[in-house]
Amino acid sequence: MSLYYDLVPTGIPGLDEALGGGLIRGRTYLISGETGTGKTLLSLSFLINGIYKYGEPGIYVSVDETYDQLMNGVRRFGWDLEALREQGYLEVLIPEMDIIEKIREKDPITIARSLVYTIADYAKSLEAQRLVIDPIAPLVTLEKDVQVLREYIRALVMGIEREVGVTTIITTEIPTGARVISRYGVEEFLAAGVFVMGLAQTTEGDFKRYLFIRKMRWQAVQPTILEVEIQPKVGVVVKGPLKDVHIPFYALMI
Amino acid sequence: MSLYYDLVPTGIPGLDEALGGGLIRGRTYLISGETGTGKTLLSLSFLINGIYKYGEPGIYVSVDETYDQLMNGVRRFGWDLEALREQGYLEVLIPEMDIIEKIREKDPITIARSLVYTIADYAKSLEAQRLVIDPIAPLVTLEKDVQVLREYIRALVMGIEREVGVTTIITTEIPTGARVISRYGVEEFLAAGVFVMGLAQTTEGDFKRYLFIRKMRWQAVQPTILEVEIQPKVGVVVKGPLKDVHIPFYALMI
Amino acid sequence: MSLYYDLVPTGIPGLDEALGGGLIRGRTYLISGETGTGKTLLSLSFLINGIYKYGEPGIYVSVDETYDQLMNGVRRFGWDLEALREQGYLEVLIPEMDIIEKIREKDPITIARSLVYTIADYAKSLEAQRLVIDPIAPLVTLEKDVQVLREYIRALVMGIEREVGVTTIITTEIPTGARVISRYGVEEFLAAGVFVMGLAQTTEGDFKRYLFIRKMRWQAVQPTILEVEIQPKVGVVVKGPLKDVHIPFYALMI
Amino acid sequence: MSLYYDLVPTGIPGLDEALGGGLIRGRTYLISGETGTGKTLLSLSFLINGIYKYGEPGIYVSVDETYDQLMNGVRRFGWDLEALREQGYLEVLIPEMDIIEKIREKDPITIARSLVYTIADYAKSLEAQRLVIDPIAPLVTLEKDVQVLREYIRALVMGIEREVGVTTIITTEIPTGARVISRYGVEEFLAAGVFVMGLAQTTEGDFKRYLFIRKMRWQAVQPTILEVEIQPKVGVVVKGPLKDVHIPFYALMI
Amino acid sequence: MSLYYDLVPTGIPGLDEALGGGLIRGRTYLISGETGTGKTLLSLSFLINGIYKYGEPGIYVSVDETYDQLMNGVRRFGWDLEALREQGYLEVLIPEMDIIEKIREKDPITIARSLVYTIADYAKSLEAQRLVIDPIAPLVTLEKDVQVLREYIRALVMGIEREVGVTTIITTEIPTGARVISRYGVEEFLAAGVFVMGLAQTTEGDFKRYLFIRKMRWQAVQPTILEVEIQPKVGVVVKGPLKDVHIPFYALMI
Amino acid sequence: MSLYYDLVPTGIPGLDEALGGGLIRGRTYLISGETGTGKTLLSLSFLINGIYKYGEPGIYVSVDETYDQLMNGVRRFGWDLEALREQGYLEVLIPEMDIIEKIREKDPITIARSLVYTIADYAKSLEAQRLVIDPIAPLVTLEKDVQVLREYIRALVMGIEREVGVTTIITTEIPTGARVISRYGVEEFLAAGVFVMGLAQTTEGDFKRYLFIRKMRWQAVQPTILEVEIQPKVGVVVKGPLKDVHIPFYALMI
Repeated sequence: MSLYYDLVPTGIPGLDEALGGGLIRGRTYLISGETGTGKTLLSLSFLINGIYKYGEPGIYVSVDETYDQLMNGVRRFGWDLEALREQGYLEVLIPEMDIIEKIREKDPITIARSLVYTIADYAKSLEAQRLVIDPIAPLVTLEKDVQVLREYIRALVMGIEREVGVTTIITTEIPTGARVISRYGVEEFLAAGVFVMGLAQTTEGDFKRYLFIRKMRWQAVQPTILEVEIQPKVGVVVKGPLKDVHIPFYALMI
Repeated sequence: MSLYYDLVPTGIPGLDEALGGGLIRGRTYLISGETGTGKTLLSLSFLINGIYKYGEPGIYVSVDETYDQLMNGVRRFGWDLEALREQGYLEVLIPEMDIIEKIREKDPITIARSLVYTIADYAKSLEAQRLVIDPIAPLVTLEKDVQVLREYIRALVMGIEREVGVTTIITTEIPTGARVISRYGVEEFLAAGVFVMGLAQTTEGDFKRYLFIRKMRWQAVQPTILEVEIQPKVGVVVKGPLKDVHIPFYALMI
Repeated sequence: MSLYYDLVPTGIPGLDEALGGGLIRGRTYLISGETGTGKTLLSLSFLINGIYKYGEPGIYVSVDETYDQLMNGVRRFGWDLEALREQGYLEVLIPEMDIIEKIREKDPITIARSLVYTIADYAKSLEAQRLVIDPIAPLVTLEKDVQVLREYIRALVMGIEREVGVTTIITTEIPTGARVISRYGVEEFLAAGVFVMGLAQTTEGDFKRYLFIRKMRWQAVQPTILEVEIQPKVGVVVKGPLKDVHIPFYALMI
Repeated sequence: MSLYYDLVPTGIPGLDEALGGGLIRGRTYLISGETGTGKTLLSLSFLINGIYKYGEPGIYVSVDETYDQLMNGVRRFGWDLEALREQGYLEVLIPEMDIIEKIREKDPITIARSLVYTIADYAKSLEAQRLVIDPIAPLVTLEKDVQVLREYIRALVMGIEREVGVTTIITTEIPTGARVISRYGVEEFLAAGVFVMGLAQTTEGDFKRYLFIRKMRWQAVQPTILEVEIQPKVGVVVKGPLKDVHIPFYALMI
Repeated sequence: MSLYYDLVPTGIPGLDEALGGGLIRGRTYLISGETGTGKTLLSLSFLINGIYKYGEPGIYVSVDETYDQLMNGVRRFGWDLEALREQGYLEVLIPEMDIIEKIREKDPITIARSLVYTIADYAKSLEAQRLVIDPIAPLVTLEKDVQVLREYIRALVMGIEREVGVTTIITTEIPTGARVISRYGVEEFLAAGVFVMGLAQTTEGDFKRYLFIRKMRWQAVQPTILEVEIQPKVGVVVKGPLKDVHIPFYALMI
Repeated sequence: MSLYYDLVPTGIPGLDEALGGGLIRGRTYLISGETGTGKTLLSLSFLINGIYKYGEPGIYVSVDETYDQLMNGVRRFGWDLEALREQGYLEVLIPEMDIIEKIREKDPITIARSLVYTIADYAKSLEAQRLVIDPIAPLVTLEKDVQVLREYIRALVMGIEREVGVTTIITTEIPTGARVISRYGVEEFLAAGVFVMGLAQTTEGDFKRYLFIRKMRWQAVQPTILEVEIQPKVGVVVKGPLKDVHIPFYALMI
């Protein structure tokens, strides 16, 4: 088995080259960034490219918008997710708030297992090979102890990797202005790779979007800052190395 | 249905062009900024332009001033809100403090629902299509757990979007000097768009007001810093891209 | 009624011009600054000018000094407050510490009401039109919950505006080195205007005093940094725009 | 009574000129600074100059050293405090630790009163006119609530000013690297004046000692940074304005 | 016994020269760094070089990946850990999560002892001379008191040094953006040496990996920043002193 | 008795000149610094020079290493501590961990007294004149209240100064990256002098070690930054004023 076949191409123009082929099949990756940096569009690009370019069904889990808001939104980008759903290539899971609340009363490990089994069921019937959880925060227990949280997220990530077997992207919202790359400070250590999305200001005062490849476990990928664009019907597109902008170090968390 | 009709023009000179048409109908937007940066005037401009330019009735919810103080204040800008009220185009809701206190004793989700239903009643009788909550803080439960707060604000925002169906602007006060864009650190993730208002100092030491388009979910809007002015009888006016000023990065929260 | 008559001139040389006439009658303004920046002198200048220039009686509420210390201090500036008291133009309220302690045992809203009624009584008998509370901290409840504090300060400010009807200046001490403009982080949102006083160092190493007009609700006042001087017998005098100094941004809280 | 006689000269060469004569008789002043900046020597210079130059007896209260350590230390500077004690010009109060511990079990206001009465007794028998408490921290209650602490320090300062009637210098230790000018964040508001002592590094890398006149209530003193030296037999000497050094702003707390 | 023989060469090209020979036999060293900086690869290089170059068996303890994920990952670097296991040169310990959870319910000192005895058993049967714990965090008790944590880590480190007798590398994850070199703030004081791994950006915007020799107890090693590369089949390689990059001071924690 | 004889020379080449002779006999000094900055070697140099150059027996108290690790380590520097022990010039106290744990269950003042009496016993039989506690942290109670800690450390320091009568050096570990000079924020105020050890980077990127004389109570010592080197068989050597390096201000805590 060649090394190449271990990798899942994202299908995002320019990104797979930078990754030396793609993501490791069956592992979990983190996209982190402040609000408005393109996390949702990047993760949707991963799913939709998976379907169109590689025939890999996918599951999108979200809570922050209603089903209709999400569908109206993606339609503005020229994507027809409903057609993909009807063709059996995509499942969109948007748990009702009261279900989430009930789940939360249980202990963290039970919650993690329950989430894993629910996703596993859908993945099985769809033969899904890609999964996006966007963002992870609403699915996180109310537990505030950082070490318990770490165990919870570990149980969730490891459960998905063992029971569901899909390649997963999890997005995480960084509170604006915080010098961290994950909300709970532990997600990055449990992910096989970390992307940081952000905005950078050029010396002329304009803004450019960037994607920073922060960590790629077991892959000989050099850390790189890529300029990205958001294009209707296409989603996120990598333009090449970011140039001529000032990015404060803390934004890259180096 | 063309994409154009999905958008609600703010009617603020120069802003709709920058937004590619306006805000997404039925969604909620956040205006954040420190004290004295123009949040109230921007949100009132949205309401009043809605009435005068597009015939869309609106509701203004506030707590920080009495009805008379508000009316006296807006009159200084040449706006006659009382006439708009009498003509049935505007409702101004200023809950009494003791009502707020009673509400607060209930649990967060119940409070959110109660607020949603009250606003829905007024919106129905007025056929309101725009809503401003300025600021959100006094309507927030006393709960201090950030995850419970997030649920509360989520219930409030989603309730308004589902039950009231108006396009909403919520303002949030950033404690001065804090490097955040929202008081509770979660509002920005629940809003379909985020504007940051602020003051910038030119190299000559003068001050300019700016409006930073920080996030526009599902809209191909490039993040931009616009110079704004406050003009009597008009409110907030966009002057174009901000130039020749130094804005510390943290003020933009990039 | 012309707009002009809504405004109360401070009588401080140079300041009313910068404010477009003065403060809005009946509203509450905040003077914030670190220790030794001139807050007491500015607020006393407002009161004394009110009496001498406009015949408006005033009330000064303080706790930080004894009556004698205050009188000796102002006498050093050439002001004879005792004569103004005897002529019925001024009342100086310095609550005994044990009274304050007793008051504090009550719940916050009751304390706020009690303070409002006490001040209202004095204001009525004096026909006072100006009020200074210098500083607000000792009158604040021991409550530490920031949201309860906000309610308390709101009840106090709104109570004064509704029950007493004077134009009020409240001073607030910023702990030195803190990047905030108010002690409890909420005062600025409840004030119709905010002034920040401070010290700036010139490139030669000298110090200049400044007054930053940070917020003027409902007034088309451009944010401005004014150089001020402290002059015996006159108090605070505005010298014009501050020049040739370096003020760290955070000192202005922009 | 001329204004001049209200002032107590410190007797420290160069300082009284900068203060326009000295300190206000009967008030309390704060000397703040990190460890090793000269607070003890400045406060002792105030006491010893008071005795030698103006015949004003004084009291020195300390806890941080034993009586012998203090006496050995000052002797190294050529000062003979024991002779001054025998001549009835000076009292050195160094409370035993167990007494302090017993006192601390009482409530804060009682502690403050107890300290005031003890000092008043000594002051009476000595006809003391100057008092130094160096530093205040060990005399502070274990109470951690900052508002209770404020009341405690207020009670202590006001008690000394009313019951003892001396001119007082209190030193306070700033934890190194903290951007504050007092340990508990409230002392500076209760002091009639504040001096900050520190070290500054010249562009050549040498160190100079400075004394920053941060606040002088009711005195028309311009904030100034003075270079000081420590001289055997003399103590602290003011050399004039500090020049050619870089002092980070936060060190001055402006 | 010459000094040279006290040292254990890491076998990492270029590192032993910089260390004056290697690590002190039987002591514990810390590799700290943010996510994605190469801690796992450096510690594996230490183990694998130990086997191939010096015939010293080793033990690798991890929790963050499953056995299969680890084996698949290392295989991508051309390392065949399974062959080393079968030959009796390597043991890979990946405790099940539920075992960890059970262990955690015990008191800290008991946990530390239990871990030490388990490792000692494996070390004995393998005649292991090298040990890697990568990372330490999952093995740390839930205790949050920093002083109890210190005791726990001390008991763990000292227990390994006394009971197991191997030369040990422990990795620790620094939460991204934190200006510390260890997660709990005490590990560095208990280690005989500390390496910090990180990413630095050149003035052209590229990234270089570095290894900072921060502390080498009892070794006359000058603190040095070395550029490192990650090479397939080889692991971490030292390229020499790092040049032409900007590393913010805080990243080196100096 | 001349002033000179009050001083205890450290015997460290170059340091006593900078100190004007040495340390005050019978007082306690603090060496603070991050991990790996040379605190242990400086304090051992003080002890060993005391024995060899001035015939003053000494006691070394530590907990962070075993007796064998310490002895092996110092032997690498060419020091034979065991010979000094056998000759009755040195005692090395390394309390067992379980003893420390038992001690800790007592109240802070009792612990401090117990430590003082134990040290006093050894000092008496050895006629010790120098003492090193390296570091103080493990001997500190688990108490977290900073004011109780202050009392504990005060009791410890004063107890040693009164009951043991030796000249003492205490080392304290600054958590890396913290802008403080002592772990608990109070040690520096209780020490008669404070040294800060650190690493500085030259403009070429090399590192130099420095010793900053931060405070010398009752000694007319100018604050100075000295370059130091660590030399086998000699320990710490002062090279003169530090030059051509950039030390961030916060590292010096000025």
